[in-house]
Amino acid sequence: MKNSNKLKNMIFFDNASTTKIDERVYAEMQPFFTEYYANPSSFHDSGQFVNDKLEQSRVKVASLIAASEDEIYFTSCGTESNNFALWGIARAYKNKGNHIITSAIEHYSILNPLKEMEREGYKVTIVPVDRYGLVNPQDVKKAITNKTVLASIMHANNEIGTIQNLKEISNILKEAEIIFHSDGIAAAGIIPVNVEDIGVDSYSFSAQQMYGPKGTAALYLKKGIKIRPLLLGGVQEKGRRAGTENVPAIIGFGKAAEIAKFELEKKLKYISDLRDNLISGIQNKIDKVKLNGHPAKRLPGNVHIAFEFVEGESIILMLNIQSIAAASGSSCASHALKSSHVLLAIKLPPALANSSVLFSLGKYNTQDEVNKVLEILPPIIKRLREISPLYK
Amino acid sequence: MKNSNKLKNMIFFDNASTTKIDERVYAEMQPFFTEYYANPSSFHDSGQFVNDKLEQSRVKVASLIAASEDEIYFTSCGTESNNFALWGIARAYKNKGNHIITSAIEHYSILNPLKEMEREGYKVTIVPVDRYGLVNPQDVKKAITNKTVLASIMHANNEIGTIQNLKEISNILKEAEIIFHSDGIAAAGIIPVNVEDIGVDSYSFSAQQMYGPKGTAALYLKKGIKIRPLLLGGVQEKGRRAGTENVPAIIGFGKAAEIAKFELEKKLKYISDLRDNLISGIQNKIDKVKLNGHPAKRLPGNVHIAFEFVEGESIILMLNIQSIAAASGSSCASHALKSSHVLLAIKLPPALANSSVLFSLGKYNTQDEVNKVLEILPPIIKRLREISPLYK
Repeated sequence: MKNSNKLKNMIFFDNASTTKIDERVYAEMQPFFTEYYANPSSFHDSGQFVNDKLEQSRVKVASLIAASEDEIYFTSCGTESNNFALWGIARAYKNKGNHIITSAIEHYSILNPLKEMEREGYKVTIVPVDRYGLVNPQDVKKAITNKTVLASIMHANNEIGTIQNLKEISNILKEAEIIFHSDGIAAAGIIPVNVEDIGVDSYSFSAQQMYGPKGTAALYLKKGIKIRPLLLGGVQEKGRRAGTENVPAIIGFGKAAEIAKFELEKKLKYISDLRDNLISGIQNKIDKVKLNGHPAKRLPGNVHIAFEFVEGESIILMLNIQSIAAASGSSCASHALKSSHVLLAIKLPPALANSSVLFSLGKYNTQDEVNKVLEILPPIIKRLREISPLYK
Repeated sequence: MKNSNKLKNMIFFDNASTTKIDERVYAEMQPFFTEYYANPSSFHDSGQFVNDKLEQSRVKVASLIAASEDEIYFTSCGTESNNFALWGIARAYKNKGNHIITSAIEHYSILNPLKEMEREGYKVTIVPVDRYGLVNPQDVKKAITNKTVLASIMHANNEIGTIQNLKEISNILKEAEIIFHSDGIAAAGIIPVNVEDIGVDSYSFSAQQMYGPKGTAALYLKKGIKIRPLLLGGVQEKGRRAGTENVPAIIGFGKAAEIAKFELEKKLKYISDLRDNLISGIQNKIDKVKLNGHPAKRLPGNVHIAFEFVEGESIILMLNIQSIAAASGSSCASHALKSSHVLLAIKLPPALANSSVLFSLGKYNTQDEVNKVLEILPPIIKRLREISPLYK
């Protein structure tokens, strides 16, 4: 089953979990494995050559989100960026207070460090979302106390694709002088991001979500915002993130950011069209389906849809047999097999939550692939409903 | 100056900072960039194929240090492994006590997190080393209090190359029921490591020090030892290290570990011979030199040597002009430009510390390269001594 031919022919509708590396990105990385392999901290020419390239990459990564290169810190993954922001900012401002605000639909790389921080004495308020997954900025305002130092509200949700109104939230937080972190991992490189415009002080984003390599991500930290390092050791990243830089991956991140910026509008339209065709196709061909998330404020590649009376897991398995890669629940928590906290937060009834599938489309998908799924999916749903005790 | 031809012809005597990736390692990694790019947490075949390969890699990495694969946790770098071990173990056992023992010559990725932990209420005792850089196990014994939960003593020093008698130290710690972490980053893949024999509970090691890629390292954690995660989020690495796995790098780590294990004895002899030839050549051709570190308990590639009356930095610059890459001070702290804490700890007089150079040799170096350095170095030292105000 798992032979390489089958894998090569798979339709990859799982771009929310990770993306294929762009061949141009990989080409840029290649010389940095066996040729320019020196440590960028080394003084000699081999080291300094690598260091120069690394700094060029930082400029490109910064440019994608309209930041300055000295506001960018490279980390090993989006999870590290989020953990770094939460622990690092909270520790740096612990004299000011110990209260943090977040939302109910954050990724586990926000919610789980916050749980650990509660064990260590921090207080956390989780604001709700509406049935589309939107945070009401007034709820953030109401959650503020005189101990609040930090709020963390994600830019776009990795499961249901809802895009928040960060500007309204940041205006409230600015007035209250509370530092605003946003998890932009599902957003950056996919939708336009301008950190000045959205008004965040800290922003996480990851190469592997924008056709770049695994093993590198970034934390944007606005000039003047203090942070304690999470990883301590050498003086890399201006002393804020120790550890030898993952050079080839960072070089790839730079190229991926450059391409993403250049292609953004075009790919956004291309992927949104595929998404809309898949959604309307499913709605036309299959009855009793429900699109989860916001109808308009939605990531371009996100098709999160509930097929009533059928288990999402069963659909995924049947699709997999027919060489279609899709996901149920949250990508990072797939192994956990518990009901998604995001679907609980939008108050989707458990039966619908369990019957949900996430098709996440990317720039390498095609209308042919959408057509193929629209051909394969209806008989799968029909068959599964026939054997479902819930379907009458 | 920094053109690629010049870089290609550089003699790389800076293997302590990082190593060139073995071509066989890179070949193994290649398909995992643009072909097998799926997220190993995904249920579909593309994800599970990658997950299987990742687990095969874990077996190889475990085997290098005679551990079991379920005792290996992948991280992003050696620094993360060390930070994870210190914070994670201390937090997991904080009901038992808050005192930690370490040595004066640890890498900054041990010493600096311990400083941060002191800010957070932990107590740290730093045991001294002798003039060769060896910890006296009796000093560890004397440092133990009824609050001691953890000791962290490195296996081999990355600057002066001294290899500790971990077995004697571990016997003392076992008797006192204190958890023993060792930073093995400079040792694993270079000298034989058997975690059972040396008696450690926790051990850090890194791919980029053994001709593997940057961006991945491991923490060995003996079965039954508790740890709190440092990076929280998804359930990767059995819930102990969240974040999408850096798949290509981990695949490369597996291959690098496999090759290192297979070639270890042969390369150890080959590199030791080069080292001894470089040391004796320098001692024969240049007067007033001093080899730092232990004469026998020494990493095979380590030539840490003081050239009296000359600044180490100046030697490095002159060697660089002649296409020889070497280092002064500690590789990770090179940018810091302060006197090495390791050389202070072995009580090397400041004048000698400042005149020290580290040539670190690896498996890709040759006797021809050693000869070339032995030809180029004496006139450099002669010239620098002529202009030195200290030399009479």
